[in-house]
Amino acid sequence: MKLYTYFRSSAAYRVRIALNLKNISHELSGVNLLKSEQQATPYTEKNPQGLLPALETEHGVLAQSLAILEWLEETHPDTPLLPADSWEKAQVRSFCYAIASDIHPIDNLRVLKYLSGELNVNDEQKNTWYRHWVIEGFNRLESLLGDHDYCFGSEPSLADICLVPQVFNALRFKVDMSQYPKISAIYARCNTLPAFIDAAPENQPDAQ
Amino acid sequence: MKLYTYFRSSAAYRVRIALNLKNISHELSGVNLLKSEQQATPYTEKNPQGLLPALETEHGVLAQSLAILEWLEETHPDTPLLPADSWEKAQVRSFCYAIASDIHPIDNLRVLKYLSGELNVNDEQKNTWYRHWVIEGFNRLESLLGDHDYCFGSEPSLADICLVPQVFNALRFKVDMSQYPKISAIYARCNTLPAFIDAAPENQPDAQ
Repeated sequence: MKLYTYFRSSAAYRVRIALNLKNISHELSGVNLLKSEQQATPYTEKNPQGLLPALETEHGVLAQSLAILEWLEETHPDTPLLPADSWEKAQVRSFCYAIASDIHPIDNLRVLKYLSGELNVNDEQKNTWYRHWVIEGFNRLESLLGDHDYCFGSEPSLADICLVPQVFNALRFKVDMSQYPKISAIYARCNTLPAFIDAAPENQPDAQ
Repeated sequence: MKLYTYFRSSAAYRVRIALNLKNISHELSGVNLLKSEQQATPYTEKNPQGLLPALETEHGVLAQSLAILEWLEETHPDTPLLPADSWEKAQVRSFCYAIASDIHPIDNLRVLKYLSGELNVNDEQKNTWYRHWVIEGFNRLESLLGDHDYCFGSEPSLADICLVPQVFNALRFKVDMSQYPKISAIYARCNTLPAFIDAAPENQPDAQ
């Protein structure tokens, strides 16, 4: 398998963690978001959605990080990343979507570019925007967490896979994480695991 | 089951369609987004995420429309809304997330409110913002569609369930849908089915 990735893309970061946790052999192919390579050929021939990440498999190319995560979970069930019970599984997914739909897309690079470009928003307003959606989201997520080692128990799940890249970005934008002791503890614990460490932006071949 | 809903919420509209397609008996409970009832008690006691929709079941309350859709699919497999094959299923999910992550959250009411409030964006700029993300998303989705009755074949799937509410909103914001003949044909076809008609905003008890 080949993963199209950019070191700082949160969504690609999620898939990198999952591939590592499941010990799936793969190669990485860098697509530079800052140079808008995701919107140009040859990448758009692989992924017409024009966004990162995409996973090239023997069946073809799959776009959207959560679709990739669900497909990996179905086809590589070792090291499960979702609980077997339907209701517990639904809670994990709900947590994931609270990040992947309700925080990350609003703070995505293309949205920030639109704010500073078309809407002429200054850097301070842009950073406040960024932090606003993270804080609103993390306030909710912190209240949903119990006292487990990871988001939903004693092993990492898709919830941790979505949470860690979002925290990484929150730190970049200087969100005060002391408000979120449970999220912070899970972030720290995940980052002791080789699967998470190897997937981190600073450890990518295309890191700048 | 009880669905917490608002007639114009795209995400609630998705779940209403699925409940109808699967013939699942349920009641509706209105939560007025314009009055911010989703962020106040008693609703936040049911759903601490403070967003719509949420589904109250015998197991508890589940938030996030896509988590609800996946749970309904797992627990009520009659009238399947995802293909059985893992790769085909992944394509349907990818299409859904292209709407549920990459279009809808950026155009959500709370984001539009932030634009006009904190960023002092005028109505014309706000409507241009809205249309920008729909157009960028629909350009991609149109290119992904084949020549089927529905998004992925001869029966509605989760893809159609995500698409129809997004088109409904695009029309409200006067997106020129003539650019999207495939999306438009699917939208029209879905809206001949009672499950979609009964779920439409104008047919809700809380419609204004």
